[in-house]
Amino acid sequence: MSDVKVESLLINYKTLEDFKQFQAYGHQELSMLEDLQNNIVENNSKSPFYGIYYGNRLVARMSLYERSKKFDHYFNPPQDYLVLFKLEVLPDYRKHGYGKMLVDYAKSFNLPIKTNPFINSHGFWEKMGFERASYNIERDLGENPFIWMPPGVKEAIRPIQLNDETYMSDGKQ
Amino acid sequence: MSDVKVESLLINYKTLEDFKQFQAYGHQELSMLEDLQNNIVENNSKSPFYGIYYGNRLVARMSLYERSKKFDHYFNPPQDYLVLFKLEVLPDYRKHGYGKMLVDYAKSFNLPIKTNPFINSHGFWEKMGFERASYNIERDLGENPFIWMPPGVKEAIRPIQLNDETYMSDGKQ
Repeated sequence: MSDVKVESLLINYKTLEDFKQFQAYGHQELSMLEDLQNNIVENNSKSPFYGIYYGNRLVARMSLYERSKKFDHYFNPPQDYLVLFKLEVLPDYRKHGYGKMLVDYAKSFNLPIKTNPFINSHGFWEKMGFERASYNIERDLGENPFIWMPPGVKEAIRPIQLNDETYMSDGKQ
Repeated sequence: MSDVKVESLLINYKTLEDFKQFQAYGHQELSMLEDLQNNIVENNSKSPFYGIYYGNRLVARMSLYERSKKFDHYFNPPQDYLVLFKLEVLPDYRKHGYGKMLVDYAKSFNLPIKTNPFINSHGFWEKMGFERASYNIERDLGENPFIWMPPGVKEAIRPIQLNDETYMSDGKQ
């Protein structure tokens, strides 16, 4: 493991081909591919992904996105925070600490972090020092938010009050 | 199939026990259970879930939540719409049309619908008449939104422009 490190991933055909190995390949990757094909993004421009190569092979990745404090419904006081998503290590490369390396990298920005784990990965996030956020249907819908907070940051107690939002009332409209 | 129908599910200990059979059991269900135990919600109060019973057994479910048009970043013109999540049929009861029954029920409200499918279920949503929404990282992050629109509704072309939101810039902050 001494020769592996977390790298910022660039958008190019090789990276996008590497991404197909990951289960969570979806709209985001398709959109990046289309933008590259249509010259909407330049080859080797920066992507929101970070990854770990083992030799030439991309074996782990995650995406990080910074949200401004005006959209913060998780933390107290409200502040800029990171959304971490698509953290995934290829099956043959698990149990080597690559997931933890990526999470530690995300924590090194010293901003609170919110993630919505894949099913059956809640134990991993607890080991990483994340905690289950209080569920709020208006904010979370089908998500299972886990959050990590640097010292001095707390969870927002009453996460949000959105008006005019209800789940379906009885009967059809 | 003639004797099964879509039912609105009530919050009680039986329903919450039934929910444990479903893979997407998470914060939402835990929160409902805690609220019931703490008498924050009444027994048999309405839940945001709809389901199908086969005899006494809950074999399929989904959650529906209505978002007001002021939070609509998907449709043109902006309007009230439904978010559909946690659609799931228990493995032994698949291929009987229960998933389609639930989706048809959601469509019967005649509001546009947005969902974020589980990995590997994109084909199902296309069969249901949903289409892949244009990806927008600010709005979608790790989601793969699929949308369904009743006649007269279109996808919002330029979904959103949120200010002050970027993915991580080069280097640490």
